[in-house]
Amino acid sequence: MNRTSRTRSTVGIVGGGPAGLMLSHLLHRAGIDSVTVDNRTRAEIEQTVRAGILESDSVRLLVDTGVSDRVLREGHPHDGIELRFGGVGHRIDFKGLVGESTWLYPQTDVFIDLAAARQRAGADVRFGVRGTRVEDLLGERPRICFTDSSGAEQVVECDYLVGADGSRSTCRHEIPEAQRRQFSREYPFAWFGILCEAPHSAPELVYAHSDRGFALISQRSETVQRMYFQCDPDEDVDAWSDDRIWQELQARVSGPDGFSLKEGAITDRTVLRFRSFVCEPMRHGNMLLAGDAAHTVPPTGAKGLNLALADATVLAEVLERAVRTGDKDVLDTYSPRAQSRVWKAQHFSYWMTSMLHTIPGATDFDRRRQLGELSMVTGSEAGSRFLAEAYTGWPQTASRRG
Amino acid sequence: MNRTSRTRSTVGIVGGGPAGLMLSHLLHRAGIDSVTVDNRTRAEIEQTVRAGILESDSVRLLVDTGVSDRVLREGHPHDGIELRFGGVGHRIDFKGLVGESTWLYPQTDVFIDLAAARQRAGADVRFGVRGTRVEDLLGERPRICFTDSSGAEQVVECDYLVGADGSRSTCRHEIPEAQRRQFSREYPFAWFGILCEAPHSAPELVYAHSDRGFALISQRSETVQRMYFQCDPDEDVDAWSDDRIWQELQARVSGPDGFSLKEGAITDRTVLRFRSFVCEPMRHGNMLLAGDAAHTVPPTGAKGLNLALADATVLAEVLERAVRTGDKDVLDTYSPRAQSRVWKAQHFSYWMTSMLHTIPGATDFDRRRQLGELSMVTGSEAGSRFLAEAYTGWPQTASRRG
Repeated sequence: MNRTSRTRSTVGIVGGGPAGLMLSHLLHRAGIDSVTVDNRTRAEIEQTVRAGILESDSVRLLVDTGVSDRVLREGHPHDGIELRFGGVGHRIDFKGLVGESTWLYPQTDVFIDLAAARQRAGADVRFGVRGTRVEDLLGERPRICFTDSSGAEQVVECDYLVGADGSRSTCRHEIPEAQRRQFSREYPFAWFGILCEAPHSAPELVYAHSDRGFALISQRSETVQRMYFQCDPDEDVDAWSDDRIWQELQARVSGPDGFSLKEGAITDRTVLRFRSFVCEPMRHGNMLLAGDAAHTVPPTGAKGLNLALADATVLAEVLERAVRTGDKDVLDTYSPRAQSRVWKAQHFSYWMTSMLHTIPGATDFDRRRQLGELSMVTGSEAGSRFLAEAYTGWPQTASRRG
Repeated sequence: MNRTSRTRSTVGIVGGGPAGLMLSHLLHRAGIDSVTVDNRTRAEIEQTVRAGILESDSVRLLVDTGVSDRVLREGHPHDGIELRFGGVGHRIDFKGLVGESTWLYPQTDVFIDLAAARQRAGADVRFGVRGTRVEDLLGERPRICFTDSSGAEQVVECDYLVGADGSRSTCRHEIPEAQRRQFSREYPFAWFGILCEAPHSAPELVYAHSDRGFALISQRSETVQRMYFQCDPDEDVDAWSDDRIWQELQARVSGPDGFSLKEGAITDRTVLRFRSFVCEPMRHGNMLLAGDAAHTVPPTGAKGLNLALADATVLAEVLERAVRTGDKDVLDTYSPRAQSRVWKAQHFSYWMTSMLHTIPGATDFDRRRQLGELSMVTGSEAGSRFLAEAYTGWPQTASRRG
């Protein structure tokens, strides 16, 4: 029979994605030890393709806390985006409007950098575990129980638990239903995403609204690009030949200014469904939620990863204060501080989504109003700056350290 | 038998409200004669109570073209509005944000000033007519036929016809259905409006969002106030006692900052239904539409009267050019120029409406997102300025005079 190994740690973190690892990293810098566990192997996480637009504060967080400056060397600063409608492009000049940039740097690379930094520091991070569960959230001995990758039973006893276990979080469900409020919105469309072997079609992201639906032209590297177009949530990827995909994408971005896409072999195609979701509160007893475990956003606003890193920043600060003072009441400050950013990001993601997509069942009035809105926003310095400051990221909520 | 009297005029205007009279006034200043007819008597129009927030350009138009400077003496400049939510007020400082103000000055007074100015100039304006119809819109002898207030049959032959006959326009229906596009949006709520004998509760308009629904606290004079609260479109005004009305209004504006309404006898109560509506094009042959005949907006954005005056300004310019050059093709420039402002105003009115009202059937997510949006807008200088520049009015579309 396997013996159960027991480990003692100040903080136990379920989930070794960017939220969990960033939290573990920030706690380490504050002299607080943690154990992180994840059901996935490190290789599995490294192979998960995700979008990657980093807000300026997210980049600063990676660089200034010593995770890695690889983002500065291998990432691509984007000083704006283009909004296309009526077949004409309108640039939102982030740098000129708010003095900030975003960075194109895949989430996978953020993970790789964080995992490497944690490894360098000799952190206790266990990938590839199974049967993870959290226990005694309200009691004296909160703990994470799991079977490690070698098959041994493990218990991590800790003072604080963190659920950073993604959108299908099991930790979230430990909050009793009577105390948990869930908010969500489904969208009647999805994104058909492709990877293709082609050079850049544009230097920055292009968000295109057309009668045929939304399209997003994104980049990945000099030779590989990522593009999306709005589709039915039940769209069958196999019904789409390369030719048909290119025809659809070209039709959605083409216009009098002559813009067109540089085509190439399509190496990956996938339908990405999305929803808006928020769980409140983000604290239950000794457990706190962070990142996708507590909220997901449509990808249109590029906020998911950034919200996860913002959560980790606030949570590290709150945990540090709780550990230093022994006052667990300070944990109650986390949820409201994190949520105020979350709801702004939810609105921004909803706004970008509803402004740019064609909405099934929309009336002619709605469609014209949408164009009126796009004209209003792009035609106004204030409107463009309002969008730019949301896209590049609001400043971190003021610290309330004692 | 009545003989039919014939009159000859360059421009024949159906509708003697602000749009029609302002157009007639501007044409007169350009040396172009017009005849204006309206089914209502002058007294009837003067007794119609309407809201009255004038954009800064609307005030300038009245004053600079010599209609009247009474707005400056008897109107009230408002340098901002208050957005209330979560029971806390957030001022949008128009003057500080965009250097402009709006003016509280009832639409009735705008009409009175315009009618007086037209009378002083000896203009041909016929109120209280009946059986008005326009004929030969596409031919050589466009005309307005009607029975005047003395019962005499009248025909006004003109080069150009203008339909400024309000939201129930008959002129609009002269555009054949196959060529007319109508865009509309119904809202699942209405406004319960009251007039009351009470002093000001606030120095500026208060737009209040609450769980119970929207409320608008407006002013009329030192002793009479106008207030509204969101209600069901089929609300029965008789089911509401004064006490119940005040309770509802107070509940919607109250909050931790201690704001409350000064109450008084309610002298008028009415349910105001509203919709968004646009008709395109605004030209058919020799006939052009202006103001509510071509578009109506929800009152939330205070855009109705201002759009009518903006239409009149553009149309006067276009007609002057057509008259000077004899080139009727120039009439085609009117619709696109006017519509670009119309669709921005439509979006703004929709935005203010949907941001501030409670939407029947909204999910908890929608409600929280709404609060996220209000926080984003009021918490951002750019967001507040975007709202302020729309509320105080976009600059007039650049003149394209030859």
